[in-house]
Amino acid sequence: MADNKRVDVKPEDKKLAGAGLRGQSAGETALCTVGKSGSGLTYCGYDVSDLADNATFEEVAYLLFNGELPNAAQLDHYKTALFAQRDLPLALKEVLQRIPANAHPMDVMRTGCSFLGNLEPEQDFSEQKQAANRLLAAFPAIMCYWYRYSHEGVEIDCVTDEDSIGGHFLHLLKGQAPSALHRRVMDVSLILYAEHEFNASTFTARVCASTLSDMFSCITGAIGTLRGPLHGGANEAAMDMIQQFDSPADAKQKMAAMLARKEKIMGFGHAIYRTSDPRNVIIKAWSEKLAHEHGDLSLYDISVACEEFMWDSKKLFCNADFFHASAYHFMGIPTALFTPIFVCSRLTGWAAHVMEQRSNNRIIRPSADYIGAEPRKVIPISER
Amino acid sequence: MADNKRVDVKPEDKKLAGAGLRGQSAGETALCTVGKSGSGLTYCGYDVSDLADNATFEEVAYLLFNGELPNAAQLDHYKTALFAQRDLPLALKEVLQRIPANAHPMDVMRTGCSFLGNLEPEQDFSEQKQAANRLLAAFPAIMCYWYRYSHEGVEIDCVTDEDSIGGHFLHLLKGQAPSALHRRVMDVSLILYAEHEFNASTFTARVCASTLSDMFSCITGAIGTLRGPLHGGANEAAMDMIQQFDSPADAKQKMAAMLARKEKIMGFGHAIYRTSDPRNVIIKAWSEKLAHEHGDLSLYDISVACEEFMWDSKKLFCNADFFHASAYHFMGIPTALFTPIFVCSRLTGWAAHVMEQRSNNRIIRPSADYIGAEPRKVIPISER
Repeated sequence: MADNKRVDVKPEDKKLAGAGLRGQSAGETALCTVGKSGSGLTYCGYDVSDLADNATFEEVAYLLFNGELPNAAQLDHYKTALFAQRDLPLALKEVLQRIPANAHPMDVMRTGCSFLGNLEPEQDFSEQKQAANRLLAAFPAIMCYWYRYSHEGVEIDCVTDEDSIGGHFLHLLKGQAPSALHRRVMDVSLILYAEHEFNASTFTARVCASTLSDMFSCITGAIGTLRGPLHGGANEAAMDMIQQFDSPADAKQKMAAMLARKEKIMGFGHAIYRTSDPRNVIIKAWSEKLAHEHGDLSLYDISVACEEFMWDSKKLFCNADFFHASAYHFMGIPTALFTPIFVCSRLTGWAAHVMEQRSNNRIIRPSADYIGAEPRKVIPISER
Repeated sequence: MADNKRVDVKPEDKKLAGAGLRGQSAGETALCTVGKSGSGLTYCGYDVSDLADNATFEEVAYLLFNGELPNAAQLDHYKTALFAQRDLPLALKEVLQRIPANAHPMDVMRTGCSFLGNLEPEQDFSEQKQAANRLLAAFPAIMCYWYRYSHEGVEIDCVTDEDSIGGHFLHLLKGQAPSALHRRVMDVSLILYAEHEFNASTFTARVCASTLSDMFSCITGAIGTLRGPLHGGANEAAMDMIQQFDSPADAKQKMAAMLARKEKIMGFGHAIYRTSDPRNVIIKAWSEKLAHEHGDLSLYDISVACEEFMWDSKKLFCNADFFHASAYHFMGIPTALFTPIFVCSRLTGWAAHVMEQRSNNRIIRPSADYIGAEPRKVIPISER
């Protein structure tokens, strides 16, 4: 299928075979296209902007797990099942209580996922959707139970009457019902981050799945991989940066100084997209709406100034992460939880890739080029 | 370096590019060769049989982490540092107490590793050897504390006066000092499993490391990958099989029936080795010694009959796992702990690969071939 080939592979990529496997195919997928000609990002054939406008996150999760969007009855059934699985076992709460407040929130997510795998193991692959759905329902509580226990000393009730996962998360975090706008933005955000082909965390999940390991192991490994600053965390870094700027003018001045010092500026450019990230225009529009609701546009205006500056000076565009920073901030979400929210969303893509890997599996076991010592003999320790 | 090319890549492997990345290079390593012409398995240039005869596991760990074998003073210093880190924090013991007895022991190892990463995080890469050494010292206690608490109701003391990690593990498991032979065999076993190039679990650790994530995330992901039945666990499956045989003749008869039913027989053949696994002859000899100490050769004789039968009927050789089954059994190790012992050993290879990946990093992010739905529009849910 020649027309499915990526259009953005540059000639130099081919020379880099072996370095990060860039441009090399590691398998097939029916889940996603990234940067394919004519469309920025699709899930199962649907453009991400179409899904963000006309679907909910639960519909997207259903789509990724089943290949088709649900009808009304299927969606109702699915949401009822997720709703019923939101609470955490007591033993898991007791584990979360033992994680200190200064722990890395991604270590908490990784550990919560791993521990749950002891209590409710995936016994065989017929249970794979159940396992994925259990994690989808439970992740907001894992994050918020630990956060509020360790930071506020509160043992929260892990159940809310919120209809959506996004609303449920915001409700758990704040202890009160979120606004309709906040619910909707969180839903859109979860859609935008849900799936992105063979990125490093998803590839980790597939390598793990290729040994026929269980769903909890695959997701635990993916969380650990997303934790790395070259992968997740760009929206946190963007937030830390824009909070240092007092005004649009101040932002442009300080960013110029950062570039002069050759500092890395997070939230811009992308490994695969070359001219724009299709998710940016969507979250940027929602960030603006939130700024108006918030009644203070300064952080949004500063963000726009950053975008203009980076394009004018470096021809770098905002990726999905940059306007997520201000959007999350307007919703009162602590910066430390930005990447754990990414987990709550990308779990759907990870789990779908695990199921896909299992459906046509060969263990992922590449080779390596040896550059080490020539053959040598062990010398007795007394003579070393 | 043409002479470093694998000699066992068959023509059909080249057609399978993308299927499991078989035969494709995913990077460089100075740590290991597998199946290279003239030598079966080397760590940093040393043949594994030379190391098994003339070194200890602690020397091998030092070699993998530092590139050179230690002298006597370095080894003494290293072992003293490991000795001091064997105990577990109270919070980790309390987490292990909350894992049920019927949990998968690999889920326990994965969770213990992940949880420790919350309490004692690797703050930056200058601490990478410390983090690896901490896990090396703590893993025997994580395994045995959970196992004996959940199975025997005993809260063990996680500290022993054993000189070696292998002896320490056996002492924790039994609550008494092991024999000199058992200490030595466990030490050899840990050497044999320590490192094996870009196998699936090690590759997971490198993908995770490539996002610049922390050591605990990398090792946690690797454990989850080793958990899969296509990777770890072959020695457990071999044990389950040979325990069903009453005699060498019974073994041959029942194996013939298994082959006739096209059942998979574990512990034979290898994805890379074509004529023999260099680790088999070593562990086989130790299994025989253990059988004599044990005073009952029947399980060993049955194992030899299995080896003969598989070679005569299928030209399949024993891999490292097969005689490990009887060897571990003679030392009184429960079958469920065979793969966790693999973790205690392979941790050294995983951590060494994490350090190597970090030293010359590019994020590991392959491509995929799209085989999914053509572009389509979201239909309103009421019309689906």
